[in-house]
Amino acid sequence: MPETTEPRYDVIAIGNAVVDVIASCSEELIEELQLNRGGMTLIDEARAEELYAAMPPAREVSGGSAANTLAGLATLGLQCAFIGQVAEDQLGKVFRHDMRATGIDFDTPGREGEPATGRVLIFVTPDGERTMNTFLGAGQFLPAAALDESLIASGAILYLEGYLWDPEEPRRAMRRAIAVAREAGRKIAFTASESFVIERHGDDFRAMIEDGVIDILFVNETELATLTGEDDFEAGLAALADKVPVLVATRSEKGAVAIAHGERAEVAAVPVIKVVDTTGAGDQFAAGFLSGYVKGEPLTRCLKRGAICASEVISHYGPRPEADMQALMAERL
Amino acid sequence: MPETTEPRYDVIAIGNAVVDVIASCSEELIEELQLNRGGMTLIDEARAEELYAAMPPAREVSGGSAANTLAGLATLGLQCAFIGQVAEDQLGKVFRHDMRATGIDFDTPGREGEPATGRVLIFVTPDGERTMNTFLGAGQFLPAAALDESLIASGAILYLEGYLWDPEEPRRAMRRAIAVAREAGRKIAFTASESFVIERHGDDFRAMIEDGVIDILFVNETELATLTGEDDFEAGLAALADKVPVLVATRSEKGAVAIAHGERAEVAAVPVIKVVDTTGAGDQFAAGFLSGYVKGEPLTRCLKRGAICASEVISHYGPRPEADMQALMAERL
Repeated sequence: MPETTEPRYDVIAIGNAVVDVIASCSEELIEELQLNRGGMTLIDEARAEELYAAMPPAREVSGGSAANTLAGLATLGLQCAFIGQVAEDQLGKVFRHDMRATGIDFDTPGREGEPATGRVLIFVTPDGERTMNTFLGAGQFLPAAALDESLIASGAILYLEGYLWDPEEPRRAMRRAIAVAREAGRKIAFTASESFVIERHGDDFRAMIEDGVIDILFVNETELATLTGEDDFEAGLAALADKVPVLVATRSEKGAVAIAHGERAEVAAVPVIKVVDTTGAGDQFAAGFLSGYVKGEPLTRCLKRGAICASEVISHYGPRPEADMQALMAERL
Repeated sequence: MPETTEPRYDVIAIGNAVVDVIASCSEELIEELQLNRGGMTLIDEARAEELYAAMPPAREVSGGSAANTLAGLATLGLQCAFIGQVAEDQLGKVFRHDMRATGIDFDTPGREGEPATGRVLIFVTPDGERTMNTFLGAGQFLPAAALDESLIASGAILYLEGYLWDPEEPRRAMRRAIAVAREAGRKIAFTASESFVIERHGDDFRAMIEDGVIDILFVNETELATLTGEDDFEAGLAALADKVPVLVATRSEKGAVAIAHGERAEVAAVPVIKVVDTTGAGDQFAAGFLSGYVKGEPLTRCLKRGAICASEVISHYGPRPEADMQALMAERL
């Protein structure tokens, strides 16, 4: 283990740099367009054009899983920096603006030419469930060369999203970033993102887990099953608990469980008056959890923070917090 | 008066084609940036960049005064078409998508090259008041040549926004459109938009009123005073009531008054639980009013429709309806 210096950032994240295009829609439209209800599907530009043409009026807000988590963390007062690939276009400017305006350092240069900045077409059904269709755009070309290695070494936690493991260049960049962070004695946090990613890259993830590369792992119930091959939730937890120092498993309205160094904690979901849009629920849970974790708070309290953040974000459209989160935390924790 | 054919559209509108960039902010930021609180200020691209850099994280939604009114009308089931100038860029595509997805015909070709599609930077203070800063972009170059004259002749009402009277090319286009619509025996509806527009172009507006060109005029309290030179609201109404067949004057939380062919009606504002964002209040009032007017409904009922639409739009961020307006109308009217 090399000698470590005091980190300058609490969390550095590498993730998709995308703008969410969010519309509420009927169940019928989901069927008609043959969407993967409740899931995330990667689409190409032609399919993106086709779906957009069929989409009701929408609102645009910056998104991206790890970027959303950083926005949550920054809103809670943590020092954060982001690495991700936008194009030099209007949506790229929107994404960059929203990151910086949230107090996040984001200096990865934009990419000239095609493809455009990535976007996620999100169809929200009346029950608040989101169905995501992602055109990664420029994001799939994040090169390892774009990594600021001294930046990565300066964050207490390197946070990575599974979604970005799918395209080749960013995967290579993330592998390099992991090496840099570990060399600097930093922790690696990883969110599995979605079962389809695990189906494609589960061997990579399981190898990283076996090798002790992942210090903090976020999964939801389905992802846990896909990753471990265990349909039973408890069996899934048991399969990972010894291999990951901090394991956080979320279960939507059934709350969440964390197991850290043998200690187990659980939390119920924080009830909301109306679930408007579940986009960002997992991302903000991770933000809340990490905001407690970096301060060394008890596991139960970290989970409670996660549940509070998730409850805020599902109460409105969009994947990032809109409330005064520090005040909300002071009131509800 | 030439013979008229049955109109194909209820309302054809010419207006700004802009995307709203909406952020909630503190009163302090309004002061610090020296914004014209509660008003609309025209800005150039450099100032737009400067203000955007200082703006909190934002959401993007399609806007434009007349375009918002059409969106309200289309949501209420009316047949509408829009004429306005976007650029061939990402924000232009967003604007066009949102119009068409609302059921509005919008076929004005996009403009190649600079400037970009117009945008309005909207700062919303905790009281829900919006402060707008508009970079008109491509919109200021709407040429009279872009008018589809057969389209204009096919709408029962031609609806124009005062904001677009300011730049020269669109002003000329609107004058031409008025001539075409009148030639076809159609009605002209005009919204004064903002006092600064009246200060600059009040002579044009007063001449049109004197000449009997405007059939339906929408003003708010301040605009009425600026237009008539009468500080007293009743004196202002009296100055115009004989010259405009249908005069609608809105007064925010004090409700609205309409005087049509000598008949007067009033309505109280529809109370809302929380004023989130007043953007689009006047636009949606006009939509509600016109939706009743085109059906020949009594004046009081037209006003009530306006008040219901305004109350819906100020209950959420963004200038266009998000609720099922036909259901809301059925419930509240």
